[in-house]
Amino acid sequence: MNIKITGTGSYIPSNVEKNESFHNHEFLNTDGSQINAPNEVIVEKFKSITGISERRYAKDHLDSSDLGSFAAEKAIEDANIDPETIDYIIVAHNFGDVKHNTIQSDMLPSLASRIKHSLRIKNPKCVAYDLLFGCPGWVEGVIQAKAFIKAGMAKRCLVIGTETLSRVVDKHDRDAMIFSDGAGATIVEETDEEGGILAHETASFTYDEAYFLFFGNSNNPELDKDTRYIKMDGRKIYEFALMNVPKAMKTCLDNSGVDIKDVKKIFIHQANEKMDEAILKRFYRLYRTEIPEHVMPMSIQKLGNSSVATVPTLFDLVKNKQLAPHELNKGDVVIFASVGAGMHINAIVYQY
Amino acid sequence: MNIKITGTGSYIPSNVEKNESFHNHEFLNTDGSQINAPNEVIVEKFKSITGISERRYAKDHLDSSDLGSFAAEKAIEDANIDPETIDYIIVAHNFGDVKHNTIQSDMLPSLASRIKHSLRIKNPKCVAYDLLFGCPGWVEGVIQAKAFIKAGMAKRCLVIGTETLSRVVDKHDRDAMIFSDGAGATIVEETDEEGGILAHETASFTYDEAYFLFFGNSNNPELDKDTRYIKMDGRKIYEFALMNVPKAMKTCLDNSGVDIKDVKKIFIHQANEKMDEAILKRFYRLYRTEIPEHVMPMSIQKLGNSSVATVPTLFDLVKNKQLAPHELNKGDVVIFASVGAGMHINAIVYQY
Repeated sequence: MNIKITGTGSYIPSNVEKNESFHNHEFLNTDGSQINAPNEVIVEKFKSITGISERRYAKDHLDSSDLGSFAAEKAIEDANIDPETIDYIIVAHNFGDVKHNTIQSDMLPSLASRIKHSLRIKNPKCVAYDLLFGCPGWVEGVIQAKAFIKAGMAKRCLVIGTETLSRVVDKHDRDAMIFSDGAGATIVEETDEEGGILAHETASFTYDEAYFLFFGNSNNPELDKDTRYIKMDGRKIYEFALMNVPKAMKTCLDNSGVDIKDVKKIFIHQANEKMDEAILKRFYRLYRTEIPEHVMPMSIQKLGNSSVATVPTLFDLVKNKQLAPHELNKGDVVIFASVGAGMHINAIVYQY
Repeated sequence: MNIKITGTGSYIPSNVEKNESFHNHEFLNTDGSQINAPNEVIVEKFKSITGISERRYAKDHLDSSDLGSFAAEKAIEDANIDPETIDYIIVAHNFGDVKHNTIQSDMLPSLASRIKHSLRIKNPKCVAYDLLFGCPGWVEGVIQAKAFIKAGMAKRCLVIGTETLSRVVDKHDRDAMIFSDGAGATIVEETDEEGGILAHETASFTYDEAYFLFFGNSNNPELDKDTRYIKMDGRKIYEFALMNVPKAMKTCLDNSGVDIKDVKKIFIHQANEKMDEAILKRFYRLYRTEIPEHVMPMSIQKLGNSSVATVPTLFDLVKNKQLAPHELNKGDVVIFASVGAGMHINAIVYQY
């Protein structure tokens, strides 16, 4: 028995937010002091590090669960399955539904219940729950689907990652430019076909690292102290990721028994272009191997960091030849890897 | 291989909020109109239906993740295990950490990361995630722990339910009197001992029922429309629960192969005394069997409805003989059952 992804879908919001739209922002340091540089310079420097030139924001009337439903519809259609045969709906997110221009997270009911409701699925045996696991939530959802299938508790799962980070950014923080909205979804199921999930690896680093990403006040000290936003210690995260992600990927690949030379693509969480390139470099260095050309598809330049949505969206784009020259062929071995708030790291070695 | 609960712990906040403290509230109907009865009458009627005479509120400086940590410490001590040997920390909640007198849910990082951090667990292989599944979240967490153990992905899990509903109630809504704060935790692990989890059952009803519990505005139309609270359609929930919970419990018991006459205790989510009694009555009627004396321990009278915390807390109290005349003896078969926002229902038949 193998476990394969039999359908994918993604929802990329149509509102394009270009770097230029941040030229009028009042960016401040974390201590509230002015930054000694014009915005044009701040934005250029940001772009040179993260690679991001634009990102997507959901339309005002849409919330995270809506984005997730749209991606799920496409994944169900792609898998060509009857939605009533889905045993689990697993929805990874971090902030619930945050309505435009409000500050509360709405998770009552959970996003999985909302999405199942929107998909008009009647079968009560389809268990719908939300998973909070930072940016690696979608990858972890696939790992949990694997657990249910291996335990004989499910045959077919819908795993969704959806997020509207534009609703929780501090406009006075340069990091606001990183974050984006989007959703990706996949059908994961038991199959007799070759390949599928060959190995997985998960790690939660919380002893010193739990609060590297956190909910904190605006850099503008005049704003309400009871209103908090997504905040991160970028430098610590960069060092942590570089130290631990390549190792986790190597453990996973070694457990799969696949040779590094047979890895065709690496789908890594789109957090920061420079960081992802450094992770890749160190990963291949662990095997004393050259980095193959076109092994790491990237979408961050145009789509930013949409948290749980980046990996399934990237996979969907490449699978559908929408990110030339990347393509996938039957039998290709790929790696999914992610790192984020928690701090959590995970990886899956997967044969397409 | 069996799967047993080897340790339990609960945290019952020390602040007692008596029914009398609601005598000065301005209760309103959902349309904002005045209720034609003095508060004393409203409160008495509330008590006669729900059975609740007092509930517990967390101290102002404590949040949901703190309560969860306290309960977890006790469960770890009770199981007499090295916390570094825990493979999964699963934390069920609904609103994250909501600081006293604020309206935002803080789940960055997730509560599981916070709790693992507080427990000072270093092992990165201990995977910590949050599960949102309405009030049945703790029961579902135990079912997910079963999946990881059966799949060979874990041997020992810490499953926590923690909630501070006092932070999300609308003071102008009579339903505010139902809700309470608390946490319960259990160690669930693989064992060669007899008994343990004999069967489980889960159902998610979202087609018509998804929004029976929801995040909505205050009954006071003068309050900010962008601030929302826990809201419920009590009548619909009552009818839904009565229709579906006994059936789910019966499916679960039948799958376990245990005779109804061998069920010693039923630990049901403490939502409403009258509702729980009606569920029990209908459950036994499905077997054309008399309800045995003392089969359903109740804590709602003194502890109110603390959502995900009620079932593990109740189990912990009975196990520790703190809810006379109830007690548990080795080999006793019990049922855990819950119903709540989603709407979700679940049940576990368990041999102690």
